[in-house]
Amino acid sequence: VMPSDAPKIKLQNTRDMGAEIVEYDRTLESREQIAARLATERGATLVPSYDDPDIIAGQGTAGLEIAEQAGELGLTLDDVIVCCSGGGLTAGIAIAIAALAPQAGVWTAEPAAYDDHRRSLAAGRRQRNDPGTPPSICDALLAPTPGELTFAINQPLLRGGLAVSDDEVRQAIVFAARTLKLVVEPGGAVALAAVLAGKLDVGGRTVAVTLSGGNIEDALLAELLTMN
Amino acid sequence: VMPSDAPKIKLQNTRDMGAEIVEYDRTLESREQIAARLATERGATLVPSYDDPDIIAGQGTAGLEIAEQAGELGLTLDDVIVCCSGGGLTAGIAIAIAALAPQAGVWTAEPAAYDDHRRSLAAGRRQRNDPGTPPSICDALLAPTPGELTFAINQPLLRGGLAVSDDEVRQAIVFAARTLKLVVEPGGAVALAAVLAGKLDVGGRTVAVTLSGGNIEDALLAELLTMN
Repeated sequence: VMPSDAPKIKLQNTRDMGAEIVEYDRTLESREQIAARLATERGATLVPSYDDPDIIAGQGTAGLEIAEQAGELGLTLDDVIVCCSGGGLTAGIAIAIAALAPQAGVWTAEPAAYDDHRRSLAAGRRQRNDPGTPPSICDALLAPTPGELTFAINQPLLRGGLAVSDDEVRQAIVFAARTLKLVVEPGGAVALAAVLAGKLDVGGRTVAVTLSGGNIEDALLAELLTMN
Repeated sequence: VMPSDAPKIKLQNTRDMGAEIVEYDRTLESREQIAARLATERGATLVPSYDDPDIIAGQGTAGLEIAEQAGELGLTLDDVIVCCSGGGLTAGIAIAIAALAPQAGVWTAEPAAYDDHRRSLAAGRRQRNDPGTPPSICDALLAPTPGELTFAINQPLLRGGLAVSDDEVRQAIVFAARTLKLVVEPGGAVALAAVLAGKLDVGGRTVAVTLSGGNIEDALLAELLTMN
């Protein structure tokens, strides 16, 4: 169940892996309701995208890897910044970091117009994005509000939330390609963008960022490489 | 000491790291002679690009990593394909693979117009590329002939050489960006191109390829992403 305005490459890659795609209107319909109905009708198992203990545990293995790799390098983590939409990857990583590198601060990174985690963490309760907000370039990070379960985990564990503009994301995508030699989609580049744009003071600190997701349209990557 | 027709990004990245660059004409001058003269004049240490035991040993650590990572995955390597110009990386990897995975065949991959290793391995002695050959898109793989030391190592250890067209390299660069999410320069994509273009029968086999080098011009990567 994918929004009809998802990038063509994401729809195509999903089809190529053999999936049947049910598209929906992100602004008018609920993905969760559509998926629940389909699961009931077909006797299928629902695999939610974030607000679920198994999903959080699975995504949390990225946090285990961050802590292990920092340890192998003899580094003590000061901060971990996670690309965040519904908060599942963040919650999993926050649990792992709390256990293995409790001195480190864990932060969400979000598009400025979809900064529901930043505002929710500041307010101490879940806030929503304005449903009329035009989509950010970060198509993977457009969830309307933090998940219920993910926020219950994230609220006590996180240091705070960072927000970046779409243009800062574009710069981070180009930096990732030019310097890291990695192809990253907009939603996967927000944590890197937060560092590059100085949203957190990283001077002299050891900071891990997730670069999560590479479903960027060829045409967009080409355009960014040519513009900058 | 870099050819004056090296990609701008490679010249720029080298300058940005603080180097003084001496440019030379690849078709008329000898890089080795220029560098030797400079080293003598300035009392500098010459670091050759391939025909040297220390360079070969250093590049061979890539072969150690290939063998170790295959072992960790429980895989038995059948073939290893290495992007090849002067033969230093190939020689280092061939020594490591001969020691740690002796069942595996090691192959060079080269641009079709600069296939001196393929022809030299077939002939049993070093062959030269025609000095009038126009440059391949693989700017890093334009050495005129296999190194003396590298060929002495490679000749008994290699299974053979593979050659790919510039267009097959272009396809491999696009595949690497789209599917592997890696930015690879033309010379670093020849081994992948050899597999994708069917130059070696890899059906049912475990094959390692090097993707070595990411100094691709933004404009070229953008052009390839848009064309394909």
